[in-house]
Amino acid sequence: MMSKAPTHNTLLKNEIRIEQRLAEWAQAFETTIQQMLKPPEAVPQVLAQAMQYSVQGGGKRVRAYIVTRFCELCGGTAKAATPAAVALECVHAFSLVHDDLPAMDDDDLRRGRPTCHKAFGEAVAILAGDALLALAFELLTDPMTDPRLGAAAVLELARGTGWAGMIGGQTTDILSEGDEPSLAVVEHIHRYKTARLLETAGRLGAISAAAGPGLLAAAGAYGDQLGRAFQIADDLLDVTGDAATLGKAVAKDAEAGKQTYPAAVGIEASRKAAGAACDRAIEALNIFGPAADDLRALARFVIERNH
Amino acid sequence: MMSKAPTHNTLLKNEIRIEQRLAEWAQAFETTIQQMLKPPEAVPQVLAQAMQYSVQGGGKRVRAYIVTRFCELCGGTAKAATPAAVALECVHAFSLVHDDLPAMDDDDLRRGRPTCHKAFGEAVAILAGDALLALAFELLTDPMTDPRLGAAAVLELARGTGWAGMIGGQTTDILSEGDEPSLAVVEHIHRYKTARLLETAGRLGAISAAAGPGLLAAAGAYGDQLGRAFQIADDLLDVTGDAATLGKAVAKDAEAGKQTYPAAVGIEASRKAAGAACDRAIEALNIFGPAADDLRALARFVIERNH
Repeated sequence: MMSKAPTHNTLLKNEIRIEQRLAEWAQAFETTIQQMLKPPEAVPQVLAQAMQYSVQGGGKRVRAYIVTRFCELCGGTAKAATPAAVALECVHAFSLVHDDLPAMDDDDLRRGRPTCHKAFGEAVAILAGDALLALAFELLTDPMTDPRLGAAAVLELARGTGWAGMIGGQTTDILSEGDEPSLAVVEHIHRYKTARLLETAGRLGAISAAAGPGLLAAAGAYGDQLGRAFQIADDLLDVTGDAATLGKAVAKDAEAGKQTYPAAVGIEASRKAAGAACDRAIEALNIFGPAADDLRALARFVIERNH
Repeated sequence: MMSKAPTHNTLLKNEIRIEQRLAEWAQAFETTIQQMLKPPEAVPQVLAQAMQYSVQGGGKRVRAYIVTRFCELCGGTAKAATPAAVALECVHAFSLVHDDLPAMDDDDLRRGRPTCHKAFGEAVAILAGDALLALAFELLTDPMTDPRLGAAAVLELARGTGWAGMIGGQTTDILSEGDEPSLAVVEHIHRYKTARLLETAGRLGAISAAAGPGLLAAAGAYGDQLGRAFQIADDLLDVTGDAATLGKAVAKDAEAGKQTYPAAVGIEASRKAAGAACDRAIEALNIFGPAADDLRALARFVIERNH
């Protein structure tokens, strides 16, 4: 018994540590986001408010954390990662605002607060999402950043976000609702809807540090696998989770006829697949050595969390 | 009598010529657009179809023409202008798809065809608009273009499109519906909703030719004033136009309680304001000499057209 308990406790401690570290980091990052979301004079007040409301919704800032940490692991500074980190959070917020719309997932609540269209109306929510996407590209090409870096970063973000990226994945997700669950379709959705933008986060971190192709590929692979692990775990929480702990409704996927991992292969096979993706994420970090321990803990946290 | 008639006829001929020239140019440009809108393998077919349907809707391609001509006038080639020209048309198409949505202007027809959400459903229309916006930035940073140019072009497009640009203007347009008509509000809407993206078209043309600040400012001023003239003329056509000639419903603005120039200052003062903006657009072309005669004719065409 003694030989097993410490391992478990150590893991548990690591997970608590990464959760705490993320929370502390996210709190400090809010100041950065607020500064970068100060609207120029011409911006209609309601639009700026809807955008700020959507970005400052209390997310875990996992995408921004990944951008920043890979920039640091590749020899860059946290400051160099800031435009890409904030841009990624803008794109993430844009996707949530549009996904929540009545014509899409029709959600009234997000992280315990009214969704953007519930708070500001549907027209403003559509426009706020649009403007957040445009703002992401504006942030990446701010004159303060290296213009050569800016173009590479824009290409990366545009591809990760666009028709062959996250938006394509969301399209497949919406259009396959009600179809017979299929592992191939689920993996396509997970890859594009979720993992692609986390891959982009890793790669944008490396690009922000002007890293070479080896580090770039490793950072991207970590994000991709983390994203797959995260989405399978998210599907599982919808089946096995507790609404009070999660802060959102459960069994919503099944109700909406969503293509999910558990619906396609069952709960046990889903847990195994999440574990395998987590292992591949951790493996991708080998090149970075012990300095990437927080990202290893993050990968484990993602599949072991209950909220 | 003889001294006046030829002037009028010459003007008329110029207008007919620019309309013909634009139509021929637009036809050739369709091939370019089609090539640049070939989807990568991962793109869901319906999404690609909705995007192509929206971009290939038979518009006049005025924005792409302006990008291309200013690139040429600044010493660049039409080929150098292609990424920015297609990107501008993608952004324009994105804005129309989202503006037509039920939560926004709720239009069923656009250029005589069903709007995107009528043809593909609301969810796909929202996503197709989103993906067209992302694609615009992808096109601007295509590895084939100069990366330094790419970042400058992205910043220009992001600002022209975003919260302090076209999307901001559309927000004011939607939110001021039903308010007492006000010239200040109308001018704000015209400036941001319409003129800002045409200013961006001019400036992106100059940027595509790596032009200096003088030419860049002139190209931008032309686009801005052309946009204002165009939007006042458009407001006037909604009051005075013929539905059959226009191919769309008239008196729709008044019905929706839209802020328009004629509603704020009357028809005659609106005609004068459109003429003044047209004059300022033509004046901005002085630096380019007679080579810009087609753009002078375009400015006159914009305020004298009846469709």
